[in-house]
Amino acid sequence: MSDFHERMHAAGIYGLWELASKMTKHPEPRAIAHMWPSALLEAMVREAGEAVPIGEERRALQLFNPGLEGQWATTNTMIAAIQLLLPGEVARAHRHTPTAIRFIMEGEGAYTSVDGERVYMAPGDLILTPSWAWHDHGNATDKPVVWMDGLDVPLIQALNAMFFQMYDQEKFPLTKPDNASAALHGHVSLSPTWVKERPRSSPLLLYSWAQTWRSLAGLRDADADPHDGIALEYTHPQTGRALLPTMACWIQMIRPGARLRAHRHTGSAVYYVVQGAGETIIDGCRFAWGRGDVITLPSWALHEHANTSTHDAAILFSIQDRPVLEALGLFREEALTEGEGHQAVTSTFKVT
Amino acid sequence: MSDFHERMHAAGIYGLWELASKMTKHPEPRAIAHMWPSALLEAMVREAGEAVPIGEERRALQLFNPGLEGQWATTNTMIAAIQLLLPGEVARAHRHTPTAIRFIMEGEGAYTSVDGERVYMAPGDLILTPSWAWHDHGNATDKPVVWMDGLDVPLIQALNAMFFQMYDQEKFPLTKPDNASAALHGHVSLSPTWVKERPRSSPLLLYSWAQTWRSLAGLRDADADPHDGIALEYTHPQTGRALLPTMACWIQMIRPGARLRAHRHTGSAVYYVVQGAGETIIDGCRFAWGRGDVITLPSWALHEHANTSTHDAAILFSIQDRPVLEALGLFREEALTEGEGHQAVTSTFKVT
Amino acid sequence: MSDFHERMHAAGIYGLWELASKMTKHPEPRAIAHMWPSALLEAMVREAGEAVPIGEERRALQLFNPGLEGQWATTNTMIAAIQLLLPGEVARAHRHTPTAIRFIMEGEGAYTSVDGERVYMAPGDLILTPSWAWHDHGNATDKPVVWMDGLDVPLIQALNAMFFQMYDQEKFPLTKPDNASAALHGHVSLSPTWVKERPRSSPLLLYSWAQTWRSLAGLRDADADPHDGIALEYTHPQTGRALLPTMACWIQMIRPGARLRAHRHTGSAVYYVVQGAGETIIDGCRFAWGRGDVITLPSWALHEHANTSTHDAAILFSIQDRPVLEALGLFREEALTEGEGHQAVTSTFKVT
Amino acid sequence: MSDFHERMHAAGIYGLWELASKMTKHPEPRAIAHMWPSALLEAMVREAGEAVPIGEERRALQLFNPGLEGQWATTNTMIAAIQLLLPGEVARAHRHTPTAIRFIMEGEGAYTSVDGERVYMAPGDLILTPSWAWHDHGNATDKPVVWMDGLDVPLIQALNAMFFQMYDQEKFPLTKPDNASAALHGHVSLSPTWVKERPRSSPLLLYSWAQTWRSLAGLRDADADPHDGIALEYTHPQTGRALLPTMACWIQMIRPGARLRAHRHTGSAVYYVVQGAGETIIDGCRFAWGRGDVITLPSWALHEHANTSTHDAAILFSIQDRPVLEALGLFREEALTEGEGHQAVTSTFKVT
Repeated sequence: MSDFHERMHAAGIYGLWELASKMTKHPEPRAIAHMWPSALLEAMVREAGEAVPIGEERRALQLFNPGLEGQWATTNTMIAAIQLLLPGEVARAHRHTPTAIRFIMEGEGAYTSVDGERVYMAPGDLILTPSWAWHDHGNATDKPVVWMDGLDVPLIQALNAMFFQMYDQEKFPLTKPDNASAALHGHVSLSPTWVKERPRSSPLLLYSWAQTWRSLAGLRDADADPHDGIALEYTHPQTGRALLPTMACWIQMIRPGARLRAHRHTGSAVYYVVQGAGETIIDGCRFAWGRGDVITLPSWALHEHANTSTHDAAILFSIQDRPVLEALGLFREEALTEGEGHQAVTSTFKVT
Repeated sequence: MSDFHERMHAAGIYGLWELASKMTKHPEPRAIAHMWPSALLEAMVREAGEAVPIGEERRALQLFNPGLEGQWATTNTMIAAIQLLLPGEVARAHRHTPTAIRFIMEGEGAYTSVDGERVYMAPGDLILTPSWAWHDHGNATDKPVVWMDGLDVPLIQALNAMFFQMYDQEKFPLTKPDNASAALHGHVSLSPTWVKERPRSSPLLLYSWAQTWRSLAGLRDADADPHDGIALEYTHPQTGRALLPTMACWIQMIRPGARLRAHRHTGSAVYYVVQGAGETIIDGCRFAWGRGDVITLPSWALHEHANTSTHDAAILFSIQDRPVLEALGLFREEALTEGEGHQAVTSTFKVT
Repeated sequence: MSDFHERMHAAGIYGLWELASKMTKHPEPRAIAHMWPSALLEAMVREAGEAVPIGEERRALQLFNPGLEGQWATTNTMIAAIQLLLPGEVARAHRHTPTAIRFIMEGEGAYTSVDGERVYMAPGDLILTPSWAWHDHGNATDKPVVWMDGLDVPLIQALNAMFFQMYDQEKFPLTKPDNASAALHGHVSLSPTWVKERPRSSPLLLYSWAQTWRSLAGLRDADADPHDGIALEYTHPQTGRALLPTMACWIQMIRPGARLRAHRHTGSAVYYVVQGAGETIIDGCRFAWGRGDVITLPSWALHEHANTSTHDAAILFSIQDRPVLEALGLFREEALTEGEGHQAVTSTFKVT
Repeated sequence: MSDFHERMHAAGIYGLWELASKMTKHPEPRAIAHMWPSALLEAMVREAGEAVPIGEERRALQLFNPGLEGQWATTNTMIAAIQLLLPGEVARAHRHTPTAIRFIMEGEGAYTSVDGERVYMAPGDLILTPSWAWHDHGNATDKPVVWMDGLDVPLIQALNAMFFQMYDQEKFPLTKPDNASAALHGHVSLSPTWVKERPRSSPLLLYSWAQTWRSLAGLRDADADPHDGIALEYTHPQTGRALLPTMACWIQMIRPGARLRAHRHTGSAVYYVVQGAGETIIDGCRFAWGRGDVITLPSWALHEHANTSTHDAAILFSIQDRPVLEALGLFREEALTEGEGHQAVTSTFKVT
């Protein structure tokens, strides 16, 4: 028998009976729940600004999930990073199949240039770089800018669909007015009839914080979701669906003192704390968070959010791979019913 | 032979050879291009306010296309009307399969109540009453309100799909906050994740003039459509498509001095002049228009718009049956190429 | 007041209060339920063959609904006709926006040529002529062929979307093998990967009776629909949806002795009795039918079918405008619950 | 600097500048092109039948891609296996989120039971087990049955969406007639109107070889695809799209003597040679194949097929992950233009 197995293996064949445990009752991600505190991120960003010159590559600190053993991944499908661009710097033009989003953390007036349009940044803005769009970044201000990148790199790698190209000059030529996409598509349910293209990714490249904040504030008293609070999804203006085929972006406000109920679902997420202070219990472990922290949530982990302030709203931005799960018929969710929807806390996350 | 035809006809049978001329080379609508000037409409509205009490039916002046011989229709598929609600009046609750839009012409603070939500009116606002939604109107202010109704009544009649029901009380009970749909759905590409319904008609019931104007103003210098100018379509926030399955609504701005090019397409329209002064040439006939005029455009008529002011923008609101044509694969359009895209003017429309 | 009304009407304006009765509680079609018996149709066809030469127009007997007062319409949206092509005849090439289907009643080996492909006919076959496709018919056999035409002419007229063109020669040139579409698309859920076009109308032009019969026979014992029996819809092979954007085609088998339950729905239909004998009760009126009869059903009429033979299956082919109602959100249906789903019969249809 | 890197890594952070080479110019899959010859597979199957009892797990020989280092995967997203069921055996009922297809290689009359319906097997049949459907297999004949399994296990693992459940009895109860789905859905573009469900995976569970062969034979002379020959995709009868959200199945016939042109695309495949003899050149390496061989193709590998017989057609069945790439906007293809579309052969695959 073991001889048979040896010959099988030599021929590139394994018995299903040898693999039984690999079909797990429910997802058992290797990625773990984890948090990168803002103090750590800020220190690293500052040091990187001093130690690392901007060269062929961006000065972007990639958040590696400790469960994924050196893999370029924050969750099984997405990578989050903190990127710093100093005054006067330019991050060279290139393009790639991974799709990128930027959520601006600090600094105003720098730009990302996407296929010939400059999109100008302010804190809280969400800026898109769709798959295979030429892009470069520049900071012509006198202050550093810092943002969170979100990309679907691990997914693109798993699907063997990575393409990458450097542009032969530092910057891609400008062919459109600044913030042109916001002028065209940044309206409340009003669509320019002369635009005929219907791209897979949102043609709106800038979702400004001013508007996002106005929308959240207007829904302050909404009877919203028991698990996600006042959660808004950024959408593709021409389809109303996820802004990117492979990633969703959400902004969610948790009211002062609110303790939301626990649920779990397939699909992973990375959260960035835009403002406020609170905690998220993930599979029984408490993650206490404040402004600027980054938290990652693996697939199928029970999670519940709470705002620990009784005065101020807490706001979380997140990237999620949910559109992938939904497109393939694999999205599934489940609410915690026992304990009135709240988990027992069995441990507390601490930065090591 | 004629005996054969007589017997055929008696049996409810006609020869195709008797009907040849009915397959026309291109659409030959019985509906004609026509204009109802604002002075006429205002006079009639004022008089109706004095002469006609509000009863079971609304005080709505229906614009009958002179080509359609007493048919309840402004175009082959749509009816436009001017409705007046005096201070203190209520138009009783009912519902019907025809879908209605209201474009507010005058008066602020009256409301339409739709399925338990009051939507408050201001000039330039667009308000929806989707098919089969309970609705009543009320004016608790001390001034009259006037709006343009647009409904797909002739289409619903042609499709034998008319249903109508009176509510057993004057007003349908309120179950939602005022302007609730705008609070939920009136955002720039941000969607409330806890709303799971995806209705056929837009769940956003109010498209406010404040936002519409801001969008138009922001596109003042856009390189827009050669035939339609800076034309924006009001859209369904969850799908990005036409806000109603049977009618589209457009707002279009024509820059000072602009003379757009002529084209024609299947599908009909009714225009309302929101502001400015200009002219539209329809199949060679000049319609000179100003604020408050209503103009109807039949299917396949060549048409071109011009702003005759060199200082002020002109703005047209319109209802169109284009979603019907598109859903059924019947939309077709053609630009006028000769005469540099401009028609010879052979007549001028005059009010009789 | 009447003076006011007169002036209003002169200005092309009517008060809604004058039109109240036009919003009916439910559809009240002017089209009525009607039947053209096969004996009548056969006699007329025979006589037409003698009396009417084939010229510019086809020799097609149009079934005019008695309720529609001389309108070219069998229902509010569709026209059915019986067409005869004698040996050696050709019906000239033309095209039009109305979409046509042919259901072959008699004769084998004649053809319809559609955009360069000859589709050969046998009894029971369904053949499509999509909107705006060039087509001519030819009978190079030594026997007459007779088929039922179904077109969406009244719908196209109501939508002002009629286009028509004669080809400058008698026949459109052949550019494809005979029955090419059936070779490409006539498979059980197998699709040619090298065909990239996705037309609105089915690219499969021939639905052969041999296959239709095989499918019906295989479902003889299926636990099918209480109102429609073993009803199959012909579908577009690339989308699985209705084969045409404006018309559906159904084939339905009613088992020996079966008496189906009554229901009603928006949308109209024309039935052709392919085989068997039975009766349909429409709004209380009994229509007894046999092979070759044509029956028309108006929108929202209660209807129930029965097979009055205890030995032989009855088979009905029908055209329906249901895709139009569904595309526009206007389809609605209702089962009769009282009387165990059966109507009281209050009259019987008799040929006058 | 290296101190900075060490502290960064300790905190779960890596610099993008350390990862530059991971964004490759084009996909560089770790999976390699490989072949498992039928003689090897038959010997292993025979030996497994003797050595391995059927227990909790199926007797399925999993084909592990040599480039993927012990990963349960034939390509980056799919696993193929050869499964043997001996007379009298039953493979216990269970369900899982991975979707499975079976392509029958040998034996007639065994069954797969899917959600209460027995689907009976014959050589060349394709049988589906959609995601999360209960299924068991049984062989009540007196001969062994052998089939190829195809599952999306590596994809489901990469997406952290694995769910698995054993049924508490050996067999799931039968609630439907044998081959019920083929009776309902196995028609040429005819759809049962009484079936309202529209599942994500095809409701047609059996694609019989008799029909597949008839379709291929009928297209023998078609002017088909220059790279794929007479390639048919098995489709979902209600949507016309891929039969499963995560896998496509193709059957392709290569005419005697035909040498198809080379191309490459994102997405991987596993081929099974149904009949005939030929060769496939993959990135310059020649794989000579015959009946029963299994070949795997990685993403973006140049490949061209040839039939080396001048008399007999060659037929390849394949599973592909193309629907995943298309759903996520990542499908891309490229034809080889130089060398008249043919690669230079630089090596030949040999079984070690």
